[in-house]
Amino acid sequence: MKRRQFLGALAAGSAGAAAGTIASPAVAQSMPEIKWRMTSSFPKSLDTLYGAGELFVKQVAEMTDGKFQIQHFAAGEIVPGLQALDATSGGTVEMCHSVSYYYVGKDPTFAIAAAVPFGLNARQQAAWLFQNGGNEKFNEFYKKYNIYGFPIGNTGAQMGGFFRKEIKTAADLQGLKMRIGGIAGQVLQKVGVVPQQLAGPDVYPALEKGTIDAAEWVGPYDDEKLGLAKVAPYYYYPGFWEGGPMVHGYVNLDKWNQLPKAYQAILQNAGHAATNYMITRYDALNPQGLRKILASGGQLRPFSNDILDACFKATNELWAEIGAKNETFKTMMADMQAFRNDEYFWWQVAEYNYDTYMIRSRTRG
Amino acid sequence: MKRRQFLGALAAGSAGAAAGTIASPAVAQSMPEIKWRMTSSFPKSLDTLYGAGELFVKQVAEMTDGKFQIQHFAAGEIVPGLQALDATSGGTVEMCHSVSYYYVGKDPTFAIAAAVPFGLNARQQAAWLFQNGGNEKFNEFYKKYNIYGFPIGNTGAQMGGFFRKEIKTAADLQGLKMRIGGIAGQVLQKVGVVPQQLAGPDVYPALEKGTIDAAEWVGPYDDEKLGLAKVAPYYYYPGFWEGGPMVHGYVNLDKWNQLPKAYQAILQNAGHAATNYMITRYDALNPQGLRKILASGGQLRPFSNDILDACFKATNELWAEIGAKNETFKTMMADMQAFRNDEYFWWQVAEYNYDTYMIRSRTRG
Repeated sequence: MKRRQFLGALAAGSAGAAAGTIASPAVAQSMPEIKWRMTSSFPKSLDTLYGAGELFVKQVAEMTDGKFQIQHFAAGEIVPGLQALDATSGGTVEMCHSVSYYYVGKDPTFAIAAAVPFGLNARQQAAWLFQNGGNEKFNEFYKKYNIYGFPIGNTGAQMGGFFRKEIKTAADLQGLKMRIGGIAGQVLQKVGVVPQQLAGPDVYPALEKGTIDAAEWVGPYDDEKLGLAKVAPYYYYPGFWEGGPMVHGYVNLDKWNQLPKAYQAILQNAGHAATNYMITRYDALNPQGLRKILASGGQLRPFSNDILDACFKATNELWAEIGAKNETFKTMMADMQAFRNDEYFWWQVAEYNYDTYMIRSRTRG
Repeated sequence: MKRRQFLGALAAGSAGAAAGTIASPAVAQSMPEIKWRMTSSFPKSLDTLYGAGELFVKQVAEMTDGKFQIQHFAAGEIVPGLQALDATSGGTVEMCHSVSYYYVGKDPTFAIAAAVPFGLNARQQAAWLFQNGGNEKFNEFYKKYNIYGFPIGNTGAQMGGFFRKEIKTAADLQGLKMRIGGIAGQVLQKVGVVPQQLAGPDVYPALEKGTIDAAEWVGPYDDEKLGLAKVAPYYYYPGFWEGGPMVHGYVNLDKWNQLPKAYQAILQNAGHAATNYMITRYDALNPQGLRKILASGGQLRPFSNDILDACFKATNELWAEIGAKNETFKTMMADMQAFRNDEYFWWQVAEYNYDTYMIRSRTRG
């Protein structure tokens, strides 16, 4: 029985009853005791990504006075990180904390909810999802996977990773073996890169031995802990395939629909708090991470416009190829691109020029 | 009686009672029915600033199933906009939605919680407040005003306003009568501007008659509605005095301390949701606002480095003057500046270069 029906039935049937006796079950119904499990796609060592999940479940517990308890499991504790969505769809767990672009094998449309190469920056991605109908459209799409999704985090713009040798032109990408996954790997493949799939701990030895030539991970705070600058000193920016990747919470759709409206609101508000936690923690910790990387021999290098232009062209070609076979992808991509065009029309004025001057004045002391 | 004491007493005294009879008062205590009033510093016409307050009270009501009701009043309905903090301190209302820099007359330290000239951008301001102890330090400072504060909104970088004539060098600022308030007005005064205080509706006629030469307001979405481009066509950027102004909720400290912990958490989580609402709504609406301004005769102009450098110098002089008399200001300013130095050290790498390329590729089509 839905809460409104329940309250309505009570009101109709017991209008004369003492307030004390009818108030209690109504309260109990609206704030029931619930225990859920949330499986994460992240290991605990990615303490800002995983930590945002921790903050999320803590906020939910605090807001409900401990009545809504979500037990949080790191990647691998229940299912491997990349099976988080399946575990949620199928009801093994009630929800997961994951990144939609892990699921491009099911449908490349998933990537657009998180980040695609040359997509939106973090604030723009949030604006698209929350103010331009993006979240609603994705939830239509998610239905066939039996999930409901909402943001729980964003890392901000990521780095392009560590390279053993300098790469100056698009020609230098030919045959380059790089640890990079998903749809970004498909883009880079078009310009000659050979994408490699490697788990975090395997990256250092592979770069050291020269089995691979380059590897991308996250941003300075997480990257520094892998120590890659010692074996691949050229640290490239920006990670043009992740300008502002959104991390999501996905809830089993039946479980979502069964929740009281108050708990649905509590999950979404906690998602906002955890989103802000993740991005501000990365913003606060990346500077120190970058200093350590530079101190350990890392050298910053920008991707050249030649490389960026070649990858941008390859990206648009890939979107055309996928869109020709996948109407949902085509529609969502066009929607995002139109929004992006609007966003940067404005962003290039006040935001960008504010940052430009602050960077200029910082450099001058 | 505090909730924990209350539950402890219950557990000790009624361990054998039936669960049904002890659960009800415990639930009632942790989620009591509360009605508050929140006075806004914003008129309803500033529908994104005021609207974030609307979203905030709606989220609080939804998360508590209607038990925590906050009635939201626009500026002037209970007290004028700039008296929101006093009304909260004194207990006329339980809380307000306001911007701390309105209260620099009490103490200039207030400004640093929102935005100061050449301060942090929106994400950095959030990172400072949430990850670097800023919010805790401000709440120590707020105690003598009997308030507890937390963010409810950010507008993003604002514009520099509309000017009747082009200004090219710092010399052009001499004697310029500009509608601008607060600590930004004090900075501009040092470079020769004559700051003017005018309410929104008085700005258009003053610019039309030439009583003033320039006026700043917010960003394109709000600015466009005033129609100022028709009488002062040069639309300058960036609003270097508001790189990412944080809007706050302030709660009467006694009222805050009396809240159950769950309700404190609910207010803060709703604050995160409303912060994201405000900034994403501005991000989504500013492009259209800017297009309309340009269509009505507005012409974009960047502040020259000569002007920015003169204002940056004046800003640092003002901080030194205020800091010499105000230790709290001096400490908080130094804290913010150290954080800013770290932030832009990192920001100039991935974030800035991502935006740079996206702006470049957009311009090229």
